[in-house]
Amino acid sequence: MTITTTRDADEARVGLTALYREVRDLTEELAAPLAPEDQQVQSMPDVSPTKWHRAHTTWFFETFVLEPDVPGYRTFDPRFCFFFNSYYEAVGRRQSRPERGLITRPGVVEVAAYRRHVDDAMRTLLEHADDATLTRIEDRVVLGLHHEQQHQELLLMDIKHVFSRNAFDATYREAPFRPPVATRPLEWVDLDGGLVEIGHDGNGFSFDNETPRHDVMLQPFRLADRLVTAGEWLEFIDDDGYRRPELWLSDGWATVQANRWDSPLYWQCDGSEWSLLTLHGRRPVDPDEPVAHVSHYEADAFAHWAGKRLPTEFEWEHAARTATTTATTTTGRFLPCRNITDAVLHPVTADTGAGLRQLYGDAWEWTRSAYLPYPRFVPAEGAIGEYNGKFMSNQMVLRGGACVTPDGHVRHTYRNFFPPASRWMFGGLRLAADT
Amino acid sequence: MTITTTRDADEARVGLTALYREVRDLTEELAAPLAPEDQQVQSMPDVSPTKWHRAHTTWFFETFVLEPDVPGYRTFDPRFCFFFNSYYEAVGRRQSRPERGLITRPGVVEVAAYRRHVDDAMRTLLEHADDATLTRIEDRVVLGLHHEQQHQELLLMDIKHVFSRNAFDATYREAPFRPPVATRPLEWVDLDGGLVEIGHDGNGFSFDNETPRHDVMLQPFRLADRLVTAGEWLEFIDDDGYRRPELWLSDGWATVQANRWDSPLYWQCDGSEWSLLTLHGRRPVDPDEPVAHVSHYEADAFAHWAGKRLPTEFEWEHAARTATTTATTTTGRFLPCRNITDAVLHPVTADTGAGLRQLYGDAWEWTRSAYLPYPRFVPAEGAIGEYNGKFMSNQMVLRGGACVTPDGHVRHTYRNFFPPASRWMFGGLRLAADT
Amino acid sequence: MTITTTRDADEARVGLTALYREVRDLTEELAAPLAPEDQQVQSMPDVSPTKWHRAHTTWFFETFVLEPDVPGYRTFDPRFCFFFNSYYEAVGRRQSRPERGLITRPGVVEVAAYRRHVDDAMRTLLEHADDATLTRIEDRVVLGLHHEQQHQELLLMDIKHVFSRNAFDATYREAPFRPPVATRPLEWVDLDGGLVEIGHDGNGFSFDNETPRHDVMLQPFRLADRLVTAGEWLEFIDDDGYRRPELWLSDGWATVQANRWDSPLYWQCDGSEWSLLTLHGRRPVDPDEPVAHVSHYEADAFAHWAGKRLPTEFEWEHAARTATTTATTTTGRFLPCRNITDAVLHPVTADTGAGLRQLYGDAWEWTRSAYLPYPRFVPAEGAIGEYNGKFMSNQMVLRGGACVTPDGHVRHTYRNFFPPASRWMFGGLRLAADT
Amino acid sequence: MTITTTRDADEARVGLTALYREVRDLTEELAAPLAPEDQQVQSMPDVSPTKWHRAHTTWFFETFVLEPDVPGYRTFDPRFCFFFNSYYEAVGRRQSRPERGLITRPGVVEVAAYRRHVDDAMRTLLEHADDATLTRIEDRVVLGLHHEQQHQELLLMDIKHVFSRNAFDATYREAPFRPPVATRPLEWVDLDGGLVEIGHDGNGFSFDNETPRHDVMLQPFRLADRLVTAGEWLEFIDDDGYRRPELWLSDGWATVQANRWDSPLYWQCDGSEWSLLTLHGRRPVDPDEPVAHVSHYEADAFAHWAGKRLPTEFEWEHAARTATTTATTTTGRFLPCRNITDAVLHPVTADTGAGLRQLYGDAWEWTRSAYLPYPRFVPAEGAIGEYNGKFMSNQMVLRGGACVTPDGHVRHTYRNFFPPASRWMFGGLRLAADT
Repeated sequence: MTITTTRDADEARVGLTALYREVRDLTEELAAPLAPEDQQVQSMPDVSPTKWHRAHTTWFFETFVLEPDVPGYRTFDPRFCFFFNSYYEAVGRRQSRPERGLITRPGVVEVAAYRRHVDDAMRTLLEHADDATLTRIEDRVVLGLHHEQQHQELLLMDIKHVFSRNAFDATYREAPFRPPVATRPLEWVDLDGGLVEIGHDGNGFSFDNETPRHDVMLQPFRLADRLVTAGEWLEFIDDDGYRRPELWLSDGWATVQANRWDSPLYWQCDGSEWSLLTLHGRRPVDPDEPVAHVSHYEADAFAHWAGKRLPTEFEWEHAARTATTTATTTTGRFLPCRNITDAVLHPVTADTGAGLRQLYGDAWEWTRSAYLPYPRFVPAEGAIGEYNGKFMSNQMVLRGGACVTPDGHVRHTYRNFFPPASRWMFGGLRLAADT
Repeated sequence: MTITTTRDADEARVGLTALYREVRDLTEELAAPLAPEDQQVQSMPDVSPTKWHRAHTTWFFETFVLEPDVPGYRTFDPRFCFFFNSYYEAVGRRQSRPERGLITRPGVVEVAAYRRHVDDAMRTLLEHADDATLTRIEDRVVLGLHHEQQHQELLLMDIKHVFSRNAFDATYREAPFRPPVATRPLEWVDLDGGLVEIGHDGNGFSFDNETPRHDVMLQPFRLADRLVTAGEWLEFIDDDGYRRPELWLSDGWATVQANRWDSPLYWQCDGSEWSLLTLHGRRPVDPDEPVAHVSHYEADAFAHWAGKRLPTEFEWEHAARTATTTATTTTGRFLPCRNITDAVLHPVTADTGAGLRQLYGDAWEWTRSAYLPYPRFVPAEGAIGEYNGKFMSNQMVLRGGACVTPDGHVRHTYRNFFPPASRWMFGGLRLAADT
Repeated sequence: MTITTTRDADEARVGLTALYREVRDLTEELAAPLAPEDQQVQSMPDVSPTKWHRAHTTWFFETFVLEPDVPGYRTFDPRFCFFFNSYYEAVGRRQSRPERGLITRPGVVEVAAYRRHVDDAMRTLLEHADDATLTRIEDRVVLGLHHEQQHQELLLMDIKHVFSRNAFDATYREAPFRPPVATRPLEWVDLDGGLVEIGHDGNGFSFDNETPRHDVMLQPFRLADRLVTAGEWLEFIDDDGYRRPELWLSDGWATVQANRWDSPLYWQCDGSEWSLLTLHGRRPVDPDEPVAHVSHYEADAFAHWAGKRLPTEFEWEHAARTATTTATTTTGRFLPCRNITDAVLHPVTADTGAGLRQLYGDAWEWTRSAYLPYPRFVPAEGAIGEYNGKFMSNQMVLRGGACVTPDGHVRHTYRNFFPPASRWMFGGLRLAADT
Repeated sequence: MTITTTRDADEARVGLTALYREVRDLTEELAAPLAPEDQQVQSMPDVSPTKWHRAHTTWFFETFVLEPDVPGYRTFDPRFCFFFNSYYEAVGRRQSRPERGLITRPGVVEVAAYRRHVDDAMRTLLEHADDATLTRIEDRVVLGLHHEQQHQELLLMDIKHVFSRNAFDATYREAPFRPPVATRPLEWVDLDGGLVEIGHDGNGFSFDNETPRHDVMLQPFRLADRLVTAGEWLEFIDDDGYRRPELWLSDGWATVQANRWDSPLYWQCDGSEWSLLTLHGRRPVDPDEPVAHVSHYEADAFAHWAGKRLPTEFEWEHAARTATTTATTTTGRFLPCRNITDAVLHPVTADTGAGLRQLYGDAWEWTRSAYLPYPRFVPAEGAIGEYNGKFMSNQMVLRGGACVTPDGHVRHTYRNFFPPASRWMFGGLRLAADT
């Protein structure tokens, strides 16, 4: 994580204070439509209750900023460190992950009070700390805000899963009607190979796993100019894609059979009609929208079926860096920091621009790269060093960003990662090929 | 189930209406201290959320009384039959039992409205039905009320378990301080054998599993005059009772090892100090109070260790019938139907009376009888016939009643039953011996 | 276990010696058709490898007779006590039951040598012990032989299951062709109720669980004069018996669904043709033969479907005692102690005699009685006391005897017992009804 | 897989025939010390019975050479394709992998006959095929032989695991005594970075996963000149290495806790004395010998503890290629193709040579590289294409070779791979560091 600290201290103070409020407010706005019962449930071990996300992100600031750096800070409730520590072994024992749904008390009322308590202390700190203190804590505050943005996305992913386990459809939030838009036929964008620079350049925030910047040798390749669509996925289903072992990785095939997968998560077929659950309720599948909620295994099998392959994360990053410097290629579909009432929390059809479209803002893109450390990667010291490095095992990298990814939280060096069987995040795919 | 129907119809109508209100009100009073988050959680498959108990008991009246017997009755929400049917196969598909905690919606507000809707319809029905209708429905209404009383006990058992899974102690309700009372040394009550009558005599309400009345041949035996105490259980622990396989049934020993049991459920040892969780919070173990929350396996091993045995359900019933006709032997410790504020929801020390004490009102008593049909037992026709008979497998009978058993819901013919490894109900034991 | 010891000592010595050889030889004859690979496999936790049965029965004599009673006896291999102790906690640690198939060494050659070693020592003991010693050990030797006869039946049950897990049919032993015989329509035998004596009378050998003799009160009842046939079972299947929850105990229905049962174990349907695996290979289902390899749950559901019920173990014993004293009612279908080449190891059609037929020798008969101690039952002292009593939990009683039950090992007081979901023993059923 | 086919056809024929006999004979020699019972057991799902390895390797030649290329070839037994197909979906249904131990029949005698049948047919084919046929089948025969060599190593790994599950030590084969040799202190070998060529150059046999050759960019790095020793591992244990979560990958820590690992597989501590099970029986741990039977998780945690890291597979290959061209660095410790009586099937202390030692022949070396396809990798057509590509998920690469790896089967481009929690292969590690 590298923060530019050369700007004027007052400006930094003002900016940080505003950013803090903005990010923290968005979390509360996201939770607002949810009743206490909704916020309590953990529908599978991967999911955390909404209430837990709200408290955990608060605990992060309390533990890593207020307690070490504010003399005399009064911890809100010493038991919360047990309940709301996620996985920081260095910080102590904690609620077992699959049992977060058992935390009946504190309830949402106490969690709201906890947030206010910490926000008050943080505001006082940010406004009144001397410059030296501010410099010392700035990196951790910024990290805490990016951390909270990650949990905003998790909150939305998780509540979608919670609602999906209800026998009757539940709706997170109504959305304005958007008439379907037809997708243009897929086109290919050719890219040269050679030695390319991979990793964050140190300007602005990044997580430690995006560093150090280093050279990677690429072969020439091509990328599809848009994401794979739901309509294309229906062709895969109709061509028995879920029943032909030769298309699948061995672990993928075992997973398909064990879970009886026959379509993406949240899809359902009533007779001949496919529908899918969105955060705005159940809707017919629109063939032109990007497919989402597929696992790495499914994405890989689809690519195999299409006679193509998934890109590596290095190919994607190289293409995205080039793309963003020569054309307007994003759709601006991120989760806005303010007034999310109009946000469409579902991937939409690609616009009609040229070049690589939908790089960000609809669905994360599975790559064929395992999540591994970059050469000379060194995690941070102490508990914060547990943030990324210890997860570099059994996971695959996704690149880009989704419709539920907070605005301003996305960049071409960002490495998202999930186990290859995971489907509850908004994971889609873009085809690649050798040239 | 047999109801006397010869009394005056008006009296029946008034009595039934009053009983209905009393029982239904108690359920709401029991739920009153619980926040929506508390009412949402299912801490293990055996447990149901408070919210679910409140709705399921309501669904029982809607399904078995209002829908068949009130022309034009408007079902509150047709989806509720899926959510709140417990196990009636004849009524249709339903929420899988271990997934009751996933029902986020309806929330507690909708459940309260559901209760009011059904209560209004029931009140109208009871007040205005003609005599023929009233006669036709009376048995089912009474059954529904006894059913709801069973769920009142379940609600208390279940929320106790929910709170026990919280890392820090939660308290259901404060209780007035009761200074410990010393227990008298155990004495034995001798009983003759011979042919004795077992089963309900048809006066007043009973469940079908208490019938038909029939003769059973007993050998002479003796019963302890009170329940086994926590202090006696501590001796068993100290004598390595949980580590000596020769004391245990084979399945019991496997269960002890698999679950690493070393004391009753809810007990905890900090250093040399034993405490236990009650519905009134955590307290030191009082050696004079009856032990509770032990499984059949533990009860059987304890009896083996003491050189005694558990009674059969027939011995217990015979002794209890004799006892209740010749002496004041109950403690009146049931859950009162009104104002439960002063209720002590935890077993207490036996009083100093003579004869068989603590037969009712502290802890259910494990017997050595498997839960099987009485000779010539015939379940009721239709869905209501699923109430008892289909559970006559792999369960052991408990007799008596506990401190959380509703007042007036207990009798010497009542057969409670649980699998032999269950511990979350208030199960204790009384020793028996051959003479 | 009570043995008459008043007969002449020499006669007892000769008889015991002959019986010892006879029983021990039969075990080896049963294992003879099995290759070392066959004898090694444990196809499910309930099954033990043939090799293990051969060694365990040997260990029983070594542990309970030779080591305590033969000064200077040389234990064959001290490690065998770990490998071949079944469940005697008092004797020490042992191979975990589900891992018996991991005992690669000793192999069948060493096991055969172990048997010879113990047989030599036993023969010497039985021939040369003084009368006092013989009197002291007689009960244990007889128990060991009955124990070995139980394992002879287990050996056959187990190897049948092992072969059933082979993708292609394997045959234990060829059998002479027996043309099908038609079954007479079922008739009912009425029996009076009243106080009847239950339990072994002390003449000849019995297991401790058959005692003490005691009075039980019975209601009048009737029994079918033969076992339920495979043809009747096909009607149950055709009438959707496996798909109608209202016929089943709750645990039974859960078991049916979890295991996707749709017919008895070893049955298979190819198109419209039902076949079953026997120890003599796969054969078409003969509708006149008794059904076997059904669980208690299935037997109970069938009886429910037929509008009847299963008998209690007391009804069965009472009827069998009466029957055996007034008519020739058994088919003599037990496993013979000598020359088993002609034995038909599969249930056959009832003969045409009058009265209760097929009480012994085809299939064990499920009762509706849980396996519980008789009044005043006391297990033996020491390790041998673990033989029966500790299993009196979660099991149901079967009465009679099967085609794989050793000759002379069956009597009307014998209590066989298995968990209600077990199917790999030869378990069938006879209908009962109230009168 | 690329085979040079330009040499003289007769020479190829003679060479292939000799190699065929040599490889096939070694398999039988490896199985020779094992009784039928030993060969039957599958001690965990990853393990296959010895008998199965012998048959499966035979099935490979029958299926991929004899049946397609020998007109009129008589399949030995059509059922064997079900039993002995490992994972080739394109070839049809097959025995489920965790149930290979249930194949009682065919037994070892039939398997030996199967081998002879196929060997006869193969010998005839190789000797009498015309040149065109020989050219057509040569690649597949060579692949089949390399495949069989892989199974020779698996056979040894697997039987070691089988024996380890026996409560008392079993010995595969006696070995001549080898006095311990002291290990020199570890030294570092520095290597330059830059663009290096990775992958097989096409001279001689390789698996498809070693191709295509391509450029990879490396940073400068250093490698330890020998493997990590058992003595160093003891220091890790003594320093609480297995109890400090901060040293571990998150999945690794979960695995350690779930399995209660506290030392490498096959290690055991009696008081203060560590011993380990080898194929030659149990022995004290020699601190100078390389550690083996550690998982990727343990290797990674050890490197973390040592302040170092594991090498990437590209670093290893680059170093090994350089090393093998400038110095004698291997110990010649492979499994010889002939007379294995003197083979030491256990890693031994490094010799005293200079440079990178123990690259081959003691223990496979875990890398930090996930098992992924090389750029432009394309699997073979048809069933043989299932050989490698479909396993490129959730596995880590190991490089080098072990003491049980067949001679001539090892090269610097060879990519071995296992899931990160696997321990039953001979997996060790060599430290790496950035410079």
